Amino acid sequence: MVKKEIRVIGIDDSPFDKFNDKKILVVGVVMRGGSWVDGILSTRVVVDGDDSTKKIAEMINKCKFKPQLQCVFLDGIAVGGFNIIDVKELSKKTKLPVIVVIRRKPNIKNIKKTLIKINKKQKIKLIEKAGNVIQVDDIFVQLTGIDLEEAKKILKIVCTRSLIPEPIRLAHLIAQGVIFGESRGRA
Amino acid sequence: MVKKEIRVIGIDDSPFDKFNDKKILVVGVVMRGGSWVDGILSTRVVVDGDDSTKKIAEMINKCKFKPQLQCVFLDGIAVGGFNIIDVKELSKKTKLPVIVVIRRKPNIKNIKKTLIKINKKQKIKLIEKAGNVIQVDDIFVQLTGIDLEEAKKILKIVCTRSLIPEPIRLAHLIAQGVIFGESRGRA
Repeated sequence: MVKKEIRVIGIDDSPFDKFNDKKILVVGVVMRGGSWVDGILSTRVVVDGDDSTKKIAEMINKCKFKPQLQCVFLDGIAVGGFNIIDVKELSKKTKLPVIVVIRRKPNIKNIKKTLIKINKKQKIKLIEKAGNVIQVDDIFVQLTGIDLEEAKKILKIVCTRSLIPEPIRLAHLIAQGVIFGESRGRA
Repeated sequence: MVKKEIRVIGIDDSPFDKFNDKKILVVGVVMRGGSWVDGILSTRVVVDGDDSTKKIAEMINKCKFKPQLQCVFLDGIAVGGFNIIDVKELSKKTKLPVIVVIRRKPNIKNIKKTLIKINKKQKIKLIEKAGNVIQVDDIFVQLTGIDLEEAKKILKIVCTRSLIPEPIRLAHLIAQGVIFGESRGRA
């Protein structure tokens, strides 16, 4: 049984100007179930850098809600361009299951090609480590530290207002709103 | 009759370092009633400056939710220290009623003394313009462009999760979380 009030965190990054911004804002929204916002966290990561796993793990581990947190939601596995999150490592560091949510099935072939082109070939293994892409209703997920049945139960609770988990939708709106002055588009 | 889905905006400012920060972040949360977040807005105002009324009015007027907005909630009448909002002017510029929410009855005498001390005597009239401080349940409000009966109806809808309107609570959490890395305390 998954409790209606299960405490989860959803994470998304802000838009950025790849020619001028060195660091970007990453926002975490801690919610109880899919409706009550308990707190807002943030950190900054280097555009196209390698610090996302460490920075996001620190943000989660030092927050006051950590003892109650039961699941991490990521909006894809990269923040700030190609600052790819090592999902297995993030799960290990936080001792929490991680559910990566993807809206459209990613073209892994193209992403790998780009990584080779920009000399980030070593990041390909991080993509592979994130696990199989599984369709759940109208979205896709990659699961670490949690099985599909359990993940589906949690998704049912947190996807209150749209296809994607509410903490990810809010993290997206906040990251956009704070940087652009107004939130737009979808997570 | 006030609709359950009435669209409102709640505004709060971020914490700042009065010795180092020249500008501070002001966050606006657009909600339908007291539960569904429609969008996040932001602007920046000068610490102890005079641009809050103009900046906040612009933030509201240019947002895509403007045609649906029916009420503005402010957390007190000052942002960024003594950047005091001209509430009457804000209401006029946005063509919206403004409800200022105050948690504890302010000591107007002390505030006036401070304004005289820091040579901002001209701001005293802005405080006076914000109107009478009225107790509603456990909070205090100042009303512009709306009568007490109507304000009470809207407050009943938007104070879903605490004594204060949910869009103000969220604006506070976001402004704190984005600046400090973690939200703390109460709006």
